[in-house]
Amino acid sequence: MRKVVLGVGISLDGYIARPDGAVDFLFVPKDYSMAPFFKRIDTAVMGRKSYEMGLKLGGGKISSYGMKCYIFSRTLGSIAHEDFAIVKEPPKPFIEALKKKKGKDIWLMGGGELTRAFLQDDLVDELYLGVVPVLIGEGIPAFPSGFPQREFALAENKTYSKGMIALRYERAGMKTKK
Amino acid sequence: MRKVVLGVGISLDGYIARPDGAVDFLFVPKDYSMAPFFKRIDTAVMGRKSYEMGLKLGGGKISSYGMKCYIFSRTLGSIAHEDFAIVKEPPKPFIEALKKKKGKDIWLMGGGELTRAFLQDDLVDELYLGVVPVLIGEGIPAFPSGFPQREFALAENKTYSKGMIALRYERAGMKTKK
Repeated sequence: MRKVVLGVGISLDGYIARPDGAVDFLFVPKDYSMAPFFKRIDTAVMGRKSYEMGLKLGGGKISSYGMKCYIFSRTLGSIAHEDFAIVKEPPKPFIEALKKKKGKDIWLMGGGELTRAFLQDDLVDELYLGVVPVLIGEGIPAFPSGFPQREFALAENKTYSKGMIALRYERAGMKTKK
Repeated sequence: MRKVVLGVGISLDGYIARPDGAVDFLFVPKDYSMAPFFKRIDTAVMGRKSYEMGLKLGGGKISSYGMKCYIFSRTLGSIAHEDFAIVKEPPKPFIEALKKKKGKDIWLMGGGELTRAFLQDDLVDELYLGVVPVLIGEGIPAFPSGFPQREFALAENKTYSKGMIALRYERAGMKTKK
């Protein structure tokens, strides 16, 4: 079964970005590789604001990195790139249908509001968090308030250089796949 | 030099308590001991709301556990217990004076607003976080927004049973004391 994995880098106070979208406080330690994560993913889902932030930070360009990318938006028109598609339906039916199709895991790229919607509908199977040792004081929260309690089981906790820690949690009750 | 240590148990989404103050989601794993922490502490500081929450949860009673307890409040009168004292001055001059007195480390017990005030004045020397594997969705944040960026260095990251992780961070630039 394909899993939905919320994969984000966060500050120690739980922000995925500064208020203006900047992620300058995040870093990838030399001894850390994102390759194992990308190996299991072939699809990304994001909110409209994250997509537009990505466009802005990329100077009007955004890459799919070979993934199929779905952008949840009630207002966006179409995107002239075969890897990108706009999703107008709510997350639950869309994700349920997506999981029935053959494929690898699905990356929920964060962007607070979509994460909240996914957690409201209990669609998050796994959390993959990179926590950097800085309090930034304000920003876009990884887990904006307003969803029911969700229990997880710690599957991995590793320390990398410069004090970055990588945490992996699976939905409580699921069997740990090593 | 005495250090100010913010020591709190938090949910994975960064709350120290539910909106009503309940901390039922927190737990102390069998293989974890708080003794090393309490050994280095002889003083606790807390906000008025945390004190009143403690009183409420204790059915009108609160114990100092042998520590000298300072409650920051502009409105509270006196407390008829020799271990408790009300602090009416702002955190910075009070903590600077306290650090000049002989003693062990000082436990900032959390309570969002006092933590924000301490971080605004850069008074937090160390973070001691116990993170439990649950998203509670709403509550009292450990790090309420509204303070300048503060850098830390990871000093300890340990995994305990039931997926609780204990993290210790020191103010960046301080020497690690093993």
